[in-house]
Amino acid sequence: MKKVRRQRKVENPLHAPHEKWQTALTCIEPNKILMRGYPLDEIMGRLTFGEAIYLLLQGEVPSPGIGRLMEAILVSFIDHGVTPPSTLAARNVATTGAPLKDSVAAGVLAFGPHHGGDIETCMRFLDSGLSLIRSGQSLQQAAETLVEECIKTNEVPPGFGHRIHSKDPRAARLFQMALELELEGEHVRLLRVIEQVIGSKSAIFGRPLPVNVDGAIAAVTADLGFAYELGNAVFLISRLPGLIAHAHEERMRQPGMRQIDPKDHDYDGARERRLPERRK
Amino acid sequence: MKKVRRQRKVENPLHAPHEKWQTALTCIEPNKILMRGYPLDEIMGRLTFGEAIYLLLQGEVPSPGIGRLMEAILVSFIDHGVTPPSTLAARNVATTGAPLKDSVAAGVLAFGPHHGGDIETCMRFLDSGLSLIRSGQSLQQAAETLVEECIKTNEVPPGFGHRIHSKDPRAARLFQMALELELEGEHVRLLRVIEQVIGSKSAIFGRPLPVNVDGAIAAVTADLGFAYELGNAVFLISRLPGLIAHAHEERMRQPGMRQIDPKDHDYDGARERRLPERRK
Amino acid sequence: MKKVRRQRKVENPLHAPHEKWQTALTCIEPNKILMRGYPLDEIMGRLTFGEAIYLLLQGEVPSPGIGRLMEAILVSFIDHGVTPPSTLAARNVATTGAPLKDSVAAGVLAFGPHHGGDIETCMRFLDSGLSLIRSGQSLQQAAETLVEECIKTNEVPPGFGHRIHSKDPRAARLFQMALELELEGEHVRLLRVIEQVIGSKSAIFGRPLPVNVDGAIAAVTADLGFAYELGNAVFLISRLPGLIAHAHEERMRQPGMRQIDPKDHDYDGARERRLPERRK
Amino acid sequence: MKKVRRQRKVENPLHAPHEKWQTALTCIEPNKILMRGYPLDEIMGRLTFGEAIYLLLQGEVPSPGIGRLMEAILVSFIDHGVTPPSTLAARNVATTGAPLKDSVAAGVLAFGPHHGGDIETCMRFLDSGLSLIRSGQSLQQAAETLVEECIKTNEVPPGFGHRIHSKDPRAARLFQMALELELEGEHVRLLRVIEQVIGSKSAIFGRPLPVNVDGAIAAVTADLGFAYELGNAVFLISRLPGLIAHAHEERMRQPGMRQIDPKDHDYDGARERRLPERRK
Repeated sequence: MKKVRRQRKVENPLHAPHEKWQTALTCIEPNKILMRGYPLDEIMGRLTFGEAIYLLLQGEVPSPGIGRLMEAILVSFIDHGVTPPSTLAARNVATTGAPLKDSVAAGVLAFGPHHGGDIETCMRFLDSGLSLIRSGQSLQQAAETLVEECIKTNEVPPGFGHRIHSKDPRAARLFQMALELELEGEHVRLLRVIEQVIGSKSAIFGRPLPVNVDGAIAAVTADLGFAYELGNAVFLISRLPGLIAHAHEERMRQPGMRQIDPKDHDYDGARERRLPERRK
Repeated sequence: MKKVRRQRKVENPLHAPHEKWQTALTCIEPNKILMRGYPLDEIMGRLTFGEAIYLLLQGEVPSPGIGRLMEAILVSFIDHGVTPPSTLAARNVATTGAPLKDSVAAGVLAFGPHHGGDIETCMRFLDSGLSLIRSGQSLQQAAETLVEECIKTNEVPPGFGHRIHSKDPRAARLFQMALELELEGEHVRLLRVIEQVIGSKSAIFGRPLPVNVDGAIAAVTADLGFAYELGNAVFLISRLPGLIAHAHEERMRQPGMRQIDPKDHDYDGARERRLPERRK
Repeated sequence: MKKVRRQRKVENPLHAPHEKWQTALTCIEPNKILMRGYPLDEIMGRLTFGEAIYLLLQGEVPSPGIGRLMEAILVSFIDHGVTPPSTLAARNVATTGAPLKDSVAAGVLAFGPHHGGDIETCMRFLDSGLSLIRSGQSLQQAAETLVEECIKTNEVPPGFGHRIHSKDPRAARLFQMALELELEGEHVRLLRVIEQVIGSKSAIFGRPLPVNVDGAIAAVTADLGFAYELGNAVFLISRLPGLIAHAHEERMRQPGMRQIDPKDHDYDGARERRLPERRK
Repeated sequence: MKKVRRQRKVENPLHAPHEKWQTALTCIEPNKILMRGYPLDEIMGRLTFGEAIYLLLQGEVPSPGIGRLMEAILVSFIDHGVTPPSTLAARNVATTGAPLKDSVAAGVLAFGPHHGGDIETCMRFLDSGLSLIRSGQSLQQAAETLVEECIKTNEVPPGFGHRIHSKDPRAARLFQMALELELEGEHVRLLRVIEQVIGSKSAIFGRPLPVNVDGAIAAVTADLGFAYELGNAVFLISRLPGLIAHAHEERMRQPGMRQIDPKDHDYDGARERRLPERRK
């Protein structure tokens, strides 16, 4: 239901007094583009794409450490094979001969609450735990309270459990980097204690519920101060190249109008390999 | 019209023999994610997001120079203020209270032929010029042939002209970087000669037609060996953060259900500033 | 947060036992299409589109009266000029030269909570009032309770208020038809009492809040037994032709890449006219 | 490539002279909505949804015969089970818990060239045949010329062939109705002669290529004078309820985040049945 106050503002838009609306993102003048105040052509070659994304969304150039963590977050979710519903939505559009951007848009729409859209839920879940801590509970107590609540309402804690991975390598790496870069904050710490509490109650949940990459991104972006909605956004930005790669592969390698069965596929790409020494 | 051969393949999909289909992008096993053969958690922290995008789309880790150029391409188109139709589509969805991803999808759909979708056209245009060169024409002759053709058919050469900029600072910076990184190739060289030829015929076109950022991205990505369709894709990836930032700003700063007039806005963000010395 | 039970079902989808999933909508066999059991070619010419929509969504052929009401609901929301955000999103996509279906998809995405998406909210609002009646309150008492609740939480009651119309002619006509066809039910009756209660408290709300077409569609479809989600769906079906007409008009009558100001337009179509006698 | 003339119009939109733009669809005034000149509340209950769609898209109230044909066209494509890519795109979005409208938008995006998007191609194909007839060829000669052309370029004639049906019952019914309502025109006549020519050359095509529902809708809407783009639009309007029904069924009957295999399903809905006598 809508707020009365908000509604009053738009009461009569057809005859609204002629006043300008404001934007703080990018200033455009002939031959000049200032993104958050910085000339875009000066940023090109000096900030990475990940740093520029942080600048655009958060308003300031990140420190080198935050920049490195931002890159890792963006890389962590770049692709996850052919079975996610977002990838299948994109491929089902691609098989009809539709333009690439249509596949991409359909894939974006599939980031519903059960698929990536959970990041915001997990950020709120952690913040409710931090409120308990501010009210006097210990980290351990807050984690137990949160998990008990989920058990009572018969819910999987947001940010936990994965269809395929019992230990998500992306989550582990994000936590390691946050620690090494001295960017681990209270959201990550709480998430990790919650993971232990869940582990001690796996009999109740009936299956292992490891922290997943959604949970890790939620905790790390929350520690970096992102708004809830922008936690989900980081996720979207990260996966876009994956949606594109799958739509493109569908168009290049498969006949049109095929029936796409997500289970009946084989991987025929590059074998497992290591980065060259200079990149380590 | 559809190819007979392609159609034959899908003749009876409901009773197709049970054979697996192939993907070469990412191999998923329990607790292991190999993107183009590399463990994703090993790449995190070692490749930037821009390098990982190149790896996913092109199949190999880029050289450091290509990596830097890739970052600059991705930064170049990250945002262009409130007036592009893609931004306005995203904001018009955001004003209805729809989730962020819906705004993003609507914005993506607005990259039609006149708005970014032109990159593929420009890549093909340049390739038709390179064919002339392979057939014996000089760079100058090929450029003149292409421009003459446009004049005959009353068309603006793809990759030229801008609503606001008479000299697009993003295009200039991309060309400078390609040159410095020794990645300037035949597509960029041809584009720049075409720009001179157009400049010498500005009386015929009736207005200045400087090379624009679409043209620059088209030439640089073509020189890097991207498929036509993926030239457009790079563009999409680059602008996604901009769509997100505008949808978020719309939701945070404006009343719902407002009438969005693209002309009546003011910029109230950060003043023009320079990167700190360490980043130059 | 996700239910544990639901999650258990999908625990290991990559190795799920091979069991078929069910659909009850349309049975396809070679040269035979049974929609809800009826051969589609037999329905063609015998059911109207509105009746076929009811059959598909609700499972049975509607009575003649319900069929007529269904047609009126679908006609009521078919278009509302150039200013709704859904129309503007569609036009902003169309101006980039994107295909018609892309404009349509962007328009559909703009049916957020403040724009049509409210129908479900209104259906739930009315059902909470009917629960009060089941618990012993009179129609008048239930209406007063609901309105008092909105005043306390500073919210506009869902289904009330309009940017332009102080008395929405579409809502009035829907109520009249429901009455004449003897299809007025408890949702419509409650909505109309709520309207009177709101009217008696207009000083508190600070502006007139007439029932709007969203509210009328919500009440009428609820009386017809539609699920909440399908109330919104009826709305979408109704407006699709409007989105198409505007995207088509944008492409046919306007230059590409224009800046669309929703306030600066004139109507130059047919003058006000009446249906021929035979259609009355 | 863009036309020079069109571009000139938008040369400097930020400083465009303040002139109004025009729309001819719907005139909105307080408490008054005129769609193509008719008060919308007067049309409600007097025109069917199909007739109102025709009025909105074509500008005039259809004759009773055209109205009946319009209804049949819209019913013909309302649903085709779970296997079309548009349905699968919608279901893959629905399985993530995304709102209904997001599923619908993804489904709409899947009407690419190989899936419904062919209607425009077929309309143009028939019109090229009618040009041959205007130039002196007989109906038979024009049909043979068109089919020979497809054979030479190794293409399936647009509007012919179906994955499942060897004789599409929807196409047959549309042709029968057009004949009975005396609305069969030159597009339908040409399409039917083309069908015979193709039948006589089935050895060359290697499989039967019956006229499909896309071809039938293309021919019938072309005879009714629809613009190419609006032929595709009629198709979209027709299938929208099907997309909605499948997205809703997915959400109601299936677990979230499931892997949707298009081949492994069963139909468990109503058995084959006939309309009651009064509706025949």
